[in-house]
Amino acid sequence: MIIDLRSDTVTKPTQDMLDAMLQAKVGDDVYKEDPTVNALEEQLAKMFGKPKALFFPTGTMANQTAIKLHTNPGDQVICDKDAHIYNYEGGGASFNSGVSCKLIDGNRGMFTAEQVVEAINPPDFYHSPLTALVEVENTANRGGGSCWDFEELKKIRTVCDSNNLGFHLDGARIWNALVEKKETAKDYGQLFDTISVCLSKGLGCPSGSVLIGDEAFMQNAIRIRKILGGGMRQVGYLASAGIYALDNNLDRLAEDHKKAKEIGSLLSELPFIKNVSPIETNIIIFELQNKRDEPKFLKALEDKNIRLSGMGQGKLRIVTHLDYTDQMHDYFLSVLSVLKF
Amino acid sequence: MIIDLRSDTVTKPTQDMLDAMLQAKVGDDVYKEDPTVNALEEQLAKMFGKPKALFFPTGTMANQTAIKLHTNPGDQVICDKDAHIYNYEGGGASFNSGVSCKLIDGNRGMFTAEQVVEAINPPDFYHSPLTALVEVENTANRGGGSCWDFEELKKIRTVCDSNNLGFHLDGARIWNALVEKKETAKDYGQLFDTISVCLSKGLGCPSGSVLIGDEAFMQNAIRIRKILGGGMRQVGYLASAGIYALDNNLDRLAEDHKKAKEIGSLLSELPFIKNVSPIETNIIIFELQNKRDEPKFLKALEDKNIRLSGMGQGKLRIVTHLDYTDQMHDYFLSVLSVLKF
Amino acid sequence: MIIDLRSDTVTKPTQDMLDAMLQAKVGDDVYKEDPTVNALEEQLAKMFGKPKALFFPTGTMANQTAIKLHTNPGDQVICDKDAHIYNYEGGGASFNSGVSCKLIDGNRGMFTAEQVVEAINPPDFYHSPLTALVEVENTANRGGGSCWDFEELKKIRTVCDSNNLGFHLDGARIWNALVEKKETAKDYGQLFDTISVCLSKGLGCPSGSVLIGDEAFMQNAIRIRKILGGGMRQVGYLASAGIYALDNNLDRLAEDHKKAKEIGSLLSELPFIKNVSPIETNIIIFELQNKRDEPKFLKALEDKNIRLSGMGQGKLRIVTHLDYTDQMHDYFLSVLSVLKF
Amino acid sequence: MIIDLRSDTVTKPTQDMLDAMLQAKVGDDVYKEDPTVNALEEQLAKMFGKPKALFFPTGTMANQTAIKLHTNPGDQVICDKDAHIYNYEGGGASFNSGVSCKLIDGNRGMFTAEQVVEAINPPDFYHSPLTALVEVENTANRGGGSCWDFEELKKIRTVCDSNNLGFHLDGARIWNALVEKKETAKDYGQLFDTISVCLSKGLGCPSGSVLIGDEAFMQNAIRIRKILGGGMRQVGYLASAGIYALDNNLDRLAEDHKKAKEIGSLLSELPFIKNVSPIETNIIIFELQNKRDEPKFLKALEDKNIRLSGMGQGKLRIVTHLDYTDQMHDYFLSVLSVLKF
Repeated sequence: MIIDLRSDTVTKPTQDMLDAMLQAKVGDDVYKEDPTVNALEEQLAKMFGKPKALFFPTGTMANQTAIKLHTNPGDQVICDKDAHIYNYEGGGASFNSGVSCKLIDGNRGMFTAEQVVEAINPPDFYHSPLTALVEVENTANRGGGSCWDFEELKKIRTVCDSNNLGFHLDGARIWNALVEKKETAKDYGQLFDTISVCLSKGLGCPSGSVLIGDEAFMQNAIRIRKILGGGMRQVGYLASAGIYALDNNLDRLAEDHKKAKEIGSLLSELPFIKNVSPIETNIIIFELQNKRDEPKFLKALEDKNIRLSGMGQGKLRIVTHLDYTDQMHDYFLSVLSVLKF
Repeated sequence: MIIDLRSDTVTKPTQDMLDAMLQAKVGDDVYKEDPTVNALEEQLAKMFGKPKALFFPTGTMANQTAIKLHTNPGDQVICDKDAHIYNYEGGGASFNSGVSCKLIDGNRGMFTAEQVVEAINPPDFYHSPLTALVEVENTANRGGGSCWDFEELKKIRTVCDSNNLGFHLDGARIWNALVEKKETAKDYGQLFDTISVCLSKGLGCPSGSVLIGDEAFMQNAIRIRKILGGGMRQVGYLASAGIYALDNNLDRLAEDHKKAKEIGSLLSELPFIKNVSPIETNIIIFELQNKRDEPKFLKALEDKNIRLSGMGQGKLRIVTHLDYTDQMHDYFLSVLSVLKF
Repeated sequence: MIIDLRSDTVTKPTQDMLDAMLQAKVGDDVYKEDPTVNALEEQLAKMFGKPKALFFPTGTMANQTAIKLHTNPGDQVICDKDAHIYNYEGGGASFNSGVSCKLIDGNRGMFTAEQVVEAINPPDFYHSPLTALVEVENTANRGGGSCWDFEELKKIRTVCDSNNLGFHLDGARIWNALVEKKETAKDYGQLFDTISVCLSKGLGCPSGSVLIGDEAFMQNAIRIRKILGGGMRQVGYLASAGIYALDNNLDRLAEDHKKAKEIGSLLSELPFIKNVSPIETNIIIFELQNKRDEPKFLKALEDKNIRLSGMGQGKLRIVTHLDYTDQMHDYFLSVLSVLKF
Repeated sequence: MIIDLRSDTVTKPTQDMLDAMLQAKVGDDVYKEDPTVNALEEQLAKMFGKPKALFFPTGTMANQTAIKLHTNPGDQVICDKDAHIYNYEGGGASFNSGVSCKLIDGNRGMFTAEQVVEAINPPDFYHSPLTALVEVENTANRGGGSCWDFEELKKIRTVCDSNNLGFHLDGARIWNALVEKKETAKDYGQLFDTISVCLSKGLGCPSGSVLIGDEAFMQNAIRIRKILGGGMRQVGYLASAGIYALDNNLDRLAEDHKKAKEIGSLLSELPFIKNVSPIETNIIIFELQNKRDEPKFLKALEDKNIRLSGMGQGKLRIVTHLDYTDQMHDYFLSVLSVLKF
């Protein structure tokens, strides 16, 4: 048995989810005739209080489409220096939309409205790129699963309104924030123009993300999805897993958070650990005393059938998830507590 | 019961295929750890005698990636005026790769090596785009499912070699050509640098395409797939359907061809039909005597629960497929034969 | 002495034009402080009855900027198969704007409103590119300096209005059309959203083009010019040549047309000439009886110090211009009349 | 009389330069037949010890072309957070080349080889953009005209070699560095793959830049220049100014540097000035005690007919140049020394 804590993307469908998939009614979604996809889109649009939602094969495509919907080539997107769209989407913002990112040096992946104001280029100074969009990631992956302060997000919304900027939420792990902060999807729906949510991380689906948004922004989304090659056919099987997960797997994210905090608590006591970032949800980022020990540390746990992610420079990441059972948790904690290093 | 002949993309998995899907062993394909996806890729690479294959959510993304692998922005792709990549991929060649198409006025979607030679721009005349790629679609969709002459393709390969051009096959329906012409996948593998094949048309899978190619071209394919947003997670469920289809649904394409020819034969006798394009595989393209009757004709069949595709200008398309049963066929022929119009 | 008839771009400034350049008051045009550039832009805007004009280093950049102003990536531009923007701008429409061209099979570079209607893709059919712009070239270079029928242009304007399409004029040689057809710049200003005009062809300036247009389209033009690298500094020297040319070199284009017709008349009598395209302005396109003789024919004239352009396939182009004197004309006609070939 | 210290781009040609311009022999540079352009390109190629040079209308286009020559869409360029290519080229790197910038938090616009190493993404980790190019600006404009340590540049070259990265120098003001540091153009030619140099800043020409580089990179430069719209015709007039400036205006840059240091020296004694960045060449960047006073300070000097550039946040920039005479210098110093503020 392997305990895989590299990411919450590694989960496999439970038997119940598989049964739901098997029974899905499907159709050709390119013609928008897949009833299960349509149902998932309606469910999510309603949940976030938005008029429109569209299924995507991946979160990267949902985000990339959102960036395209908000920008023209040459424009600039304001985001945190640790943002997924800047660091982990293969340079897609520039490839797909021809835009650059203005990186804010935020705190654990989060920034303030004041920082946004400073990052906006004057619209009539045509030497600098035209600022068009503010992007926020909640929870912030590289920030250690950190949760944004909703009051600050409201202030950023006001800045966007005053400066004619779009406001997009990369909500790949918004579910974790909702559960942890006791916020509602509608809260976020009211604040953002577009929101991408992922079905295959904490929710445990095989694949798929959904972009939710206002009519004005979404009207072109299906065309962009087609161009990027995201127009799948009988994809209701994946959508069905999504519906199942929304109905069954949301509340249990609290368990992942609890385990993450327990792991973090133990890590912070270990002599070879330099520090552990604050843990709010299901991600633990920590640093070794000696940053050269990263490969050695990964190997030591691999030998115990435990897999983590090395982030370079002695930083490591652990992500708890649906497939990380209580039994695995006990085993991992026991291994950690006696680890000679 | 609806008889849907708009496209062979509308098929839904049979129970056997569904069973295969549900039993698939899956993993996170972003880490290349989905054993079923890996198995499908190996099977197809081997089948075409190529070193590498990569799964894509759609045929559009597989084609778009191939175009990107062969070109730089500003370059030009030679293809038929009816090519799918020019007409039906949302302008993706220009959006994703920044390239234009040099359209050959071919015959039923097919052209000659001599026409290719004439379409090549002189490489040192920098006013015209640099020709970089020749693209061929077999069977040619808008050509009426037409099958290329393999000897002509060999000549085009020679032209590509002499002019340092890539050679890509849009093989969305290559299976139909292989069955009809008694050719092998390896024949095509030897001729083309890259080949996209579709699992969700004649083969009857829910979704998915695979790009197959030489190492030199494919080494960057996974990066492009990531950028376009095609890096799915536990996508082995779709790959499993593909493996099932390759093992079970290939030979039966001959039945679709037979039915298509029978429909065409009947159509060509009807007084309100102007002409029927030659039928080689599972696509029937025909023209009404009066091109303004297109909506009325579609409506007349819709009233009999039969759905076709209007192509505009009085042209219509019928596509036979796995879900078009013998019983439906008899019914459709009987409806057609007495149709007052 | 070389008689260079390859293009009207080869002209060099006369002494009077040089004097005008020398006396130009200049400033930094990036700050929009070059008084001569500003004066030229105002003069041309007024001439065409438009609110705005902007100087560009080249006609290619003026056209490319116009295409960008009218389109989003993925969109499609309707133009003639012989259009300069498709054939001679290095694939720039796809490189700079990510758009493709829908080529109309026109007559000598010109097409009808009806052909435009047929070329428009249905806006809600997202498989095909979104049609966004109709582009017209007057005179049409590869059409043999042909002049559009103004009544047909009006009809195309109506089609653009009905279909929400932009309408751009590549007026690199609009001066020749104005002189030949006794039309006014204002006529064209009323019809098109944007117009590019060239100073360095028939008008005889060293370099420079100007884009003229409506506020809504032009407001972003200076930003696009900056991005493409067209924001020059003390460029009033070139603008001054432009002002001189507009004041002095317009009417004399009639002489170029007269000479072109005389050359064409002689050519059409020569036994080794297959045909001469109708000649309306300063461009003569003709075809050799034997298309393989093209290099030999060019060489024969080169030996007499006369240079033409070969267009391939036995087609050749002659362009008359400001530097082609009466004396040269007499010599060329005498050479042609006794040419053994 | 206005004393314009906003930039060294505001200079106007002297009478001697104008005479040189007007006597230039010109031709059509699109056919590469302008002898003066060709001579300038040869002179600069030789000066930097490189095989090829190409004239551009602007430095932005020369830089943008270089970026394109070194990268593919999706790639990443390493540069300083203050780099001109990131801040002042209108987002062109993303618009024209589809690339993003990895910004190094350098010191006065300069960074170390070690920082480059840390900024390189692992080539096989396809989630992050592929690092393709390191770009350096010397002197660094926003760094306050700072001059790079040549030994550090050598180390960066080694890093580029080890990691298969291109190395481009934005040498818009390389002339100032050469004069100040007593370095030679050949030193830089040996180190970089491509170098852009500007004729219209310290050298005092109206407009124009030249890209100099190795054959492998430059072979496609003329095509990119054409696509961006930089292929001008009889542009020898501008090239002639360049030749004049290279022959006459290089050494005198030392005078600009001397004046800049004198201004800086006085500024640093003024009570309302918070600090003055180290001054190495012709740029002075300084900060007001109270950053809100920026508009007021600009106004106070404007009232004395002196123009500076506000950079926002209480920072200001002064640039000395060819048109800033000794007399102006005395006047400016006297104004500054008694300025009540």
